[in-house]
Amino acid sequence: MPEIRYNIITREWVIIATERAKRPEEFAKPNLRKEPPLSFNPKCPFCPGNEKMTPPESYRIPANGSWHVRVIPNKFSALNATGELIRHSEGLKRTISGVGIHEVIIETPAHDRSLALLSDTEMEQVIDTYQQRYHAVTDDPRVAHVTLFKNHGERAGTSLEHPHSQLVGTPIIPPQVRERMENALRFYDETGDCIFCSVMAEELLDHARIIMQTDYFVCFQPYAALTPFHIWIFPIRHTANFADATDAELTDLARLLRRLLRKIYYGLDNPDYNLSIRTPPREARGLRYYHWYVSVIPRVTRVAGFELGSGMFINVALPEASAEYLRKMPADPV
Amino acid sequence: MPEIRYNIITREWVIIATERAKRPEEFAKPNLRKEPPLSFNPKCPFCPGNEKMTPPESYRIPANGSWHVRVIPNKFSALNATGELIRHSEGLKRTISGVGIHEVIIETPAHDRSLALLSDTEMEQVIDTYQQRYHAVTDDPRVAHVTLFKNHGERAGTSLEHPHSQLVGTPIIPPQVRERMENALRFYDETGDCIFCSVMAEELLDHARIIMQTDYFVCFQPYAALTPFHIWIFPIRHTANFADATDAELTDLARLLRRLLRKIYYGLDNPDYNLSIRTPPREARGLRYYHWYVSVIPRVTRVAGFELGSGMFINVALPEASAEYLRKMPADPV
Repeated sequence: MPEIRYNIITREWVIIATERAKRPEEFAKPNLRKEPPLSFNPKCPFCPGNEKMTPPESYRIPANGSWHVRVIPNKFSALNATGELIRHSEGLKRTISGVGIHEVIIETPAHDRSLALLSDTEMEQVIDTYQQRYHAVTDDPRVAHVTLFKNHGERAGTSLEHPHSQLVGTPIIPPQVRERMENALRFYDETGDCIFCSVMAEELLDHARIIMQTDYFVCFQPYAALTPFHIWIFPIRHTANFADATDAELTDLARLLRRLLRKIYYGLDNPDYNLSIRTPPREARGLRYYHWYVSVIPRVTRVAGFELGSGMFINVALPEASAEYLRKMPADPV
Repeated sequence: MPEIRYNIITREWVIIATERAKRPEEFAKPNLRKEPPLSFNPKCPFCPGNEKMTPPESYRIPANGSWHVRVIPNKFSALNATGELIRHSEGLKRTISGVGIHEVIIETPAHDRSLALLSDTEMEQVIDTYQQRYHAVTDDPRVAHVTLFKNHGERAGTSLEHPHSQLVGTPIIPPQVRERMENALRFYDETGDCIFCSVMAEELLDHARIIMQTDYFVCFQPYAALTPFHIWIFPIRHTANFADATDAELTDLARLLRRLLRKIYYGLDNPDYNLSIRTPPREARGLRYYHWYVSVIPRVTRVAGFELGSGMFINVALPEASAEYLRKMPADPV
């Protein structure tokens, strides 16, 4: 019989098709091909030499000379970088002026070099840039919350090939974040514990869904994973906000993430994926009841109609089997 | 400057790209082509003559002879139709056995006849079947909630061409429904009013987002529409549950829905879409604070990465402009 599992952190129910579950290998054959050669696309605005095709950069590594990482305002920003934050209310209608920051983080000068194929040092520079820009953007008092995410491939929502992440500082707190905070606070009220720390402790004891563990992070599939390879990465030290991650933690995260992305790259044949740093609002630092984390969702299946109609997910794989597959997949098979 | 609008019913924030907004015509050119001829696909399990390719039917119209509407259990059901509802709790893990009802409603014998191209009478039979099956499935005490939806086209999540809807009776209440109920109850606590009735009254006064109005229903775009043609249809009479809609209301809904789908079919060139009857749990009848409704979401744009990462939507069209476009589009241009 299928199982319906509950995610106590997100309060989502997921139907796990236990009997008809596909084996991890069915989603994609491992692909042990060599890394593609570096490449340059003369028409790509993110390629070196084409810097004039983008707005002036807001950050770069290193400060001078040819860059490794480059941050620019999004040319097609959904929000205005300048202007006043104005709230308007009329009857039941609530409106806020569309001010905020929308940046693009170009992760590498190489046009066709996937994040999975960066070196440890290059990956550290990307993660370090995430936090640098998080600090810079949250300095803007109009920004209430920052969403940091990466879409890899068309099924994940991007059409631009050159590896990049995005940062959006909004004057509002996204509903998903607000709901998870309310729920985490309720759990803290009842138990005195952080819900994320509690789930992590249980996952470590159970071990069935653990993919990797380092000195500072635990990487696992949630018990009620929404999709076949839905992955969470929690910092082991209780830390509410991404802004509070230490240098040692960021270095460790970069290495873990690189290994994970390589497992996915080789084990699932370079699938499209979404990666996101999930952190509470800018002021939420030091909270006892909330915990920042990273989510990675390879797009190996399509979101089907039932999900769209009900907000309920059907996962056609067993999280335990998917986790084992990724746990055993070497990060450097070639 | 863009606007960030709030949906007071769903508590969702949406960035409306007011300045860079596309005009409704840009999403699809109107297509005034004639209706396609009826057609039969010998390999389609939903076509007449192939009834043996599906499980035995649970309902049909008419009771004997060749059918107009036919309901069958989903051959690839996500849930088991038989078996006991068992709850299991271990530490922070919560599990329910995957029992429930998953049915397919075949809307017409004609393989390539879109719902938009049915006659009024045929459409009435489909809507009537929705309510008949809602009653039948909620008779099962294991069913806590019923999701009724239709996916039209591949971008909406279906691969089967033959027009059909689906009904899923789950032993749990989907998170979206639970959250909207909590929010509606809070509004009722504060104001003594149904939040849906209040929004509808404001929309009627404002008129800018109204697409159609009949004796029994109001069809409009929400102030904070998630996508360019996000459409809601509210019953004018305060009614909590779809089960309580009267025959006169169902007939009226069928006619309105047929006209709306034809406006979309001709005005947006037969786009893929999701249609869903949004109703509270089975027992929630007579509630003063909740209200059933219908949502229709044509898939004219892709869900992009920002949406996936944050749960916040960017709408690249003005709801007022889209509503005007559909309001003026004739339902029968040919």
